[in-house]
Amino acid sequence: MEPVSPADLTRTVLDRHANVPDVRLKEIITSLIAHLHAFATEVRLTEQEWAAGIRFLTEAGHITDANRQEFILLSDTLGLSMLVDVINHDAGEGSTESTVLGPFWVADAAWRENGAVIGRPDDGEPLHVFGQVLDLGRTPIAGAVVDVWQASGRGLYDVQDPQQPVGNLRGRFRTDAAGRYDFWTVRPLAYAIPDDGPVGKMLAALGRHPWRAAHIHFKVSAEGCRSVTSHVFDAEGGYLDSDTVFGVKPSLVRTTSVVAGAPPAPFTGDEHRSIEYDFVLVPK
Amino acid sequence: MEPVSPADLTRTVLDRHANVPDVRLKEIITSLIAHLHAFATEVRLTEQEWAAGIRFLTEAGHITDANRQEFILLSDTLGLSMLVDVINHDAGEGSTESTVLGPFWVADAAWRENGAVIGRPDDGEPLHVFGQVLDLGRTPIAGAVVDVWQASGRGLYDVQDPQQPVGNLRGRFRTDAAGRYDFWTVRPLAYAIPDDGPVGKMLAALGRHPWRAAHIHFKVSAEGCRSVTSHVFDAEGGYLDSDTVFGVKPSLVRTTSVVAGAPPAPFTGDEHRSIEYDFVLVPK
Repeated sequence: MEPVSPADLTRTVLDRHANVPDVRLKEIITSLIAHLHAFATEVRLTEQEWAAGIRFLTEAGHITDANRQEFILLSDTLGLSMLVDVINHDAGEGSTESTVLGPFWVADAAWRENGAVIGRPDDGEPLHVFGQVLDLGRTPIAGAVVDVWQASGRGLYDVQDPQQPVGNLRGRFRTDAAGRYDFWTVRPLAYAIPDDGPVGKMLAALGRHPWRAAHIHFKVSAEGCRSVTSHVFDAEGGYLDSDTVFGVKPSLVRTTSVVAGAPPAPFTGDEHRSIEYDFVLVPK
Repeated sequence: MEPVSPADLTRTVLDRHANVPDVRLKEIITSLIAHLHAFATEVRLTEQEWAAGIRFLTEAGHITDANRQEFILLSDTLGLSMLVDVINHDAGEGSTESTVLGPFWVADAAWRENGAVIGRPDDGEPLHVFGQVLDLGRTPIAGAVVDVWQASGRGLYDVQDPQQPVGNLRGRFRTDAAGRYDFWTVRPLAYAIPDDGPVGKMLAALGRHPWRAAHIHFKVSAEGCRSVTSHVFDAEGGYLDSDTVFGVKPSLVRTTSVVAGAPPAPFTGDEHRSIEYDFVLVPK
């Protein structure tokens, strides 16, 4: 009797899924099994390595709770989250590219007036952010919603940090008749993702660091347009070429300028940094 | 500026692993990322499907504890466990093929004399199992260890079932001078793997059942030989073509015979079933 080969077994497992009732589920499971088996066969996965994989997933499951999502960190650090973003947000020519939402967005953030200050001197260096929301023909869109959030200079978002007031470094703005938005915050700094779990151990074993490039999150929406979830990255903030979740797209990087002029209170000094950043939305 | 494509992103993620210090880890992570990305790209995985995957892994992590291992069930039901077995146990011509160990083996099971009874009439129909342990030249191996375990007619192993005495349907035998082993148990029945968790839901969505083909587990070892972990499957026990963990290899299937002659106490009746099953070991 012929012994069973790896290829025989893969064929048997795939054949077992010939009659999956849901067409889309069949497509997904068939591709998943084919690639999972191809991976194990290609590297000739040992029983010890398989067992290490089971232990890794078990530890990731056990550290995951309402405030910590190790499987999302795993997806992020293997580039899967960004891949799903790229697959699903094939931006039209000239429109703003998207990037990961991340775990720190909060629904229904406070509404703020244009020109408002959303950060504190303790959070970092004053930064003026302004620009326009435009359509593909570069016509300004009035009444667009610009939802903003970012980490403080300590590398934490308000929802992670008892030392920040709720809603710090966060807010929703509406563009004016000329499509303009405008707010004062602090210059974003690079920060490390939570690295005290199995994903942190994995990054260390791979010789990778846990740092994200300095960024401000945006979620921009307007009637009749597709919303875009994006970041603006600080060109001088570091880690642009090695952002640990692969979130950097070249079109999203901006250099801050140093501008003469005092920032509004509670900031002090007689100059400040600024970023001008326009968003281009595509029709639905 | 050119938008990032799925292929660009995969290349970026792979490039990030060009300098993984451990050569084997580099080989594994590179293949894993390539296949994970190829899967997502090939099926054009949506954000909702990605989120369902994250929820599935999270639930699997949360149901896993000291007595329940959902990630092993997942590996088993996707055929990965058997694939790892096939890759690592390429049996020599004529030797006994291996199959999965499963989660119910117990180290240091009680030693039993050849001819011992290891089951109870409550567990099922009496079955006499006997045979020889041989080398590739079919020379009997004396003093080989034949470690045996199986589920009762209720589909549970002693370690899962408070109604069975510890060590029921389990034991270690040593072959005699002619390489023979011999014991009395019950005919194995098909049983369902635990299907009240995410893997059970997955099988249901795939239109698959949770049943394992009827089998007795063996782990056979002898000095100077490679140990083999295997099953014998009952040809008439059902599910041979659809064992939910893909453990069946044609060379491991046997038909029980009905034989005249009373089984030993506590079994009753004037006939019984028997299986003759030889193990062929390869040198180390």
